[in-house]
Amino acid sequence: MPFEASGTETPIDGMVNQLARLPGIGPKSAQRLAFFLLSLPKKDVTLFTETLKTTRDTVRYCKLCFNISWKEVCHICENPKRDRHRLCIVAEPKELMAIERTGAFRGIYHVLGGLISPIDGIHPDALRIQELLKRLQDLSVSELILALNPTIEGDATALYLTHMLQPKGLKISKLAYGLPMGSDIDYADEVTLEKAFSDRRGIEDDG
Amino acid sequence: MPFEASGTETPIDGMVNQLARLPGIGPKSAQRLAFFLLSLPKKDVTLFTETLKTTRDTVRYCKLCFNISWKEVCHICENPKRDRHRLCIVAEPKELMAIERTGAFRGIYHVLGGLISPIDGIHPDALRIQELLKRLQDLSVSELILALNPTIEGDATALYLTHMLQPKGLKISKLAYGLPMGSDIDYADEVTLEKAFSDRRGIEDDG
Repeated sequence: MPFEASGTETPIDGMVNQLARLPGIGPKSAQRLAFFLLSLPKKDVTLFTETLKTTRDTVRYCKLCFNISWKEVCHICENPKRDRHRLCIVAEPKELMAIERTGAFRGIYHVLGGLISPIDGIHPDALRIQELLKRLQDLSVSELILALNPTIEGDATALYLTHMLQPKGLKISKLAYGLPMGSDIDYADEVTLEKAFSDRRGIEDDG
Repeated sequence: MPFEASGTETPIDGMVNQLARLPGIGPKSAQRLAFFLLSLPKKDVTLFTETLKTTRDTVRYCKLCFNISWKEVCHICENPKRDRHRLCIVAEPKELMAIERTGAFRGIYHVLGGLISPIDGIHPDALRIQELLKRLQDLSVSELILALNPTIEGDATALYLTHMLQPKGLKISKLAYGLPMGSDIDYADEVTLEKAFSDRRGIEDDG
């Protein structure tokens, strides 16, 4: 038995403490989740915990692009139909997954593993930039697309990569910044609206 | 391998789907939790999942009061120092735990397993009322304290129990309703403020 009954300890303390480790889950939510798990059939909780453990134990990072993968090389990198001339650079696998869900990009990816942020001690050498340079030697990439968050860290990383890679004669583009579709100009924040103005496109561009 | 790579499926889909079963966790939060678990060392995830599974598999309900317990009889029921003349009735173990944290009650409990709610199909026979009647025969309870939520369901359950048990000559009390400590009269809801007025106590009561 992993627990021992004492004055204030309860049989679910271990469970609550573990659930409270999850980001955004405070002690109260953790207790609510614990009672929910206790209310499920044992086999459901077994499926829950085994899925989590198996996924953690088997998921690894693609040795080429560093996307999460079951195998040494992920299903995008090994797919012969993907366009190897377009390389999209993202910070984390979740952003790759968001782009994949749109179906708008048929090239390949490179996951940096973060963004440059000196204030958090994340310098370029903490990111997978050496691996990127190595891949660019092996591939014949015609366009590099920087899909980095429109934040100070994203902009710093984009600037760093552009300075490093533009001299190599690569075409580098980045995602458009501006008003989100379906939004209201009246409610847009000033920085976004200013960006939407300064990056305005001639109507003929859409033709 | 429990998963198979396909077009849109990702290696963490199983994990995300399981996490999204938790109450209050939507698909986006589930993905965030999944990436958090992937970022932890494998041994931490193993501890996490094993604690959850072991707790679910070993925790049961006390055969006397229906509190959650490691053993057949919970540590409150088996504690000889608890006052067996005062029985506190709660709907769920979490309410019992909240009362225990205050340290204000040294009697024993009975967990009903819910509250009467005809609209949700919860009738008195779905609650542990027969078990309560059986216990009251075995124990010599002098005071029954109804610690039920101040809601329609809590009041309905309190009324039902009072009608059933008062003819047996039992002293029945319920928790005080009124202004929460540290609150602001100006911000109290009308029902609470009205209740605080109608249940006002003479100053000498506090002496």
